[in-house]
Amino acid sequence: MGFRYVLAPDGRVDPADRGLAYGDGLFETMAVHNAAVLRIDLHLARLRAGAKRLTLPLPDDATLAAKLGAACAGIRRGALKLIVTRGIGPRGYAPPQQPEPTIILAASTRTAPYPATITAVTLQQRLSENESLAGMKHLCRLEQVLGQIELASSDADEGLMLSTSGNVIGGTSRNLVAVLGPRLVTPDLRRAGIRGVMRQAVLDQCRASGIAFEESNVQPADLTGASEIFMTNALVGIQSVARLDQRSMPSQDLAIRLRAALAQDHDD
Amino acid sequence: MGFRYVLAPDGRVDPADRGLAYGDGLFETMAVHNAAVLRIDLHLARLRAGAKRLTLPLPDDATLAAKLGAACAGIRRGALKLIVTRGIGPRGYAPPQQPEPTIILAASTRTAPYPATITAVTLQQRLSENESLAGMKHLCRLEQVLGQIELASSDADEGLMLSTSGNVIGGTSRNLVAVLGPRLVTPDLRRAGIRGVMRQAVLDQCRASGIAFEESNVQPADLTGASEIFMTNALVGIQSVARLDQRSMPSQDLAIRLRAALAQDHDD
Repeated sequence: MGFRYVLAPDGRVDPADRGLAYGDGLFETMAVHNAAVLRIDLHLARLRAGAKRLTLPLPDDATLAAKLGAACAGIRRGALKLIVTRGIGPRGYAPPQQPEPTIILAASTRTAPYPATITAVTLQQRLSENESLAGMKHLCRLEQVLGQIELASSDADEGLMLSTSGNVIGGTSRNLVAVLGPRLVTPDLRRAGIRGVMRQAVLDQCRASGIAFEESNVQPADLTGASEIFMTNALVGIQSVARLDQRSMPSQDLAIRLRAALAQDHDD
Repeated sequence: MGFRYVLAPDGRVDPADRGLAYGDGLFETMAVHNAAVLRIDLHLARLRAGAKRLTLPLPDDATLAAKLGAACAGIRRGALKLIVTRGIGPRGYAPPQQPEPTIILAASTRTAPYPATITAVTLQQRLSENESLAGMKHLCRLEQVLGQIELASSDADEGLMLSTSGNVIGGTSRNLVAVLGPRLVTPDLRRAGIRGVMRQAVLDQCRASGIAFEESNVQPADLTGASEIFMTNALVGIQSVARLDQRSMPSQDLAIRLRAALAQDHDD
């Protein structure tokens, strides 16, 4: 089994790569701290779960971890983006019988910490529903792009996206957690959305701390009664939503508590 | 407004291209006959309609037509694939304020004509529904890729794909037309599917010939009573479906008549 490694920004990609032609691949965007990838096990587990669903060959974890480690050498604080595509193929949706996946690594540095609070606005742009794609961080992200284009005409930091059937899924690039009365809830992602690594870390932390947590359908109307909402992703960590649409959130307590519990290296 | 042209197979693409990163772009696959693109006006009209919906800048039609013409010079019979992406961008779904789109051209020759009849099988893989993406030939095609992976384990030539709500949409890379009793019907594509150029040519031909034609919801059960089914795309033209699942189709008459009426240059 062969793999073709491309190191950005100098490496280049074949125009017949199936990642470009059809979105036939996966990606991970990882926080880098002191030249190491944060939560690398969760990232590799999600990548491998997606690759299995797409029947996309991957190098073993040790090889991938070594490549990631080499790519973020010397970066004190930053991000590492990994793209894995099914590689070059002839025209047509059918994958080649013996694909040689393309593995792209792009590291970047960052100096300013991410803010602890953001504002959000509900977008018109919807997310389509398909169990065969839901949860994966695949390359087909045009709905999120259209969401960001819509968001640009507001003054909010993030857009809240609903599925086509009207369920709350999350932000354009963040998962969502809400305190609804006595319940701590995050949207069910079996039909739409991405299973974020930071979302998983929060779920794991709640389980370890004995905090009850539900994954269930969330309606927009549910959020109008929320006492607290926060959003997560691997780069920004946990961010409190200070305002959703016209409503200011009364609390940020759980987010502050979880940030402390997770010893969030993102902003230290 | 700048554009970056990439001629395949020698040209290369930046790994930060948004077509690769997010499927943020469109494509056209066009039949080439005697060094000219067949139905170039329909292809450019569809491309421009998609670009408008994605707020993706395009060169004017004359410039594009000249580039396409140059790319298929010397090709007696073949295909020309055009990809337009939003170009290189920083990490994140938000497009750059001043995008410089990437325009990729890949020409190929072909010697064997496409068969006039194919067999088809109904796939389990579904197509998601979203009005904001439906109809466009955008780069997010993982559902079709998964459909082709499923199809590979059958002996059929094409897979019939339904939407997540159970409506017939078409093949993995073809539109569908069915004769249902006295009605000539093609699936409504307002929530899923691609508005094919050959489908449009067939609709136009029917209109010119006074043949009544409906775009409406088609259920799988409707097709079990079809007297004729054919599929279309810009490369293969019109192909009769000789068998769908276990059922042989009684007629191919309309497909034969339309092929003649359209003076199908594809197989002459």
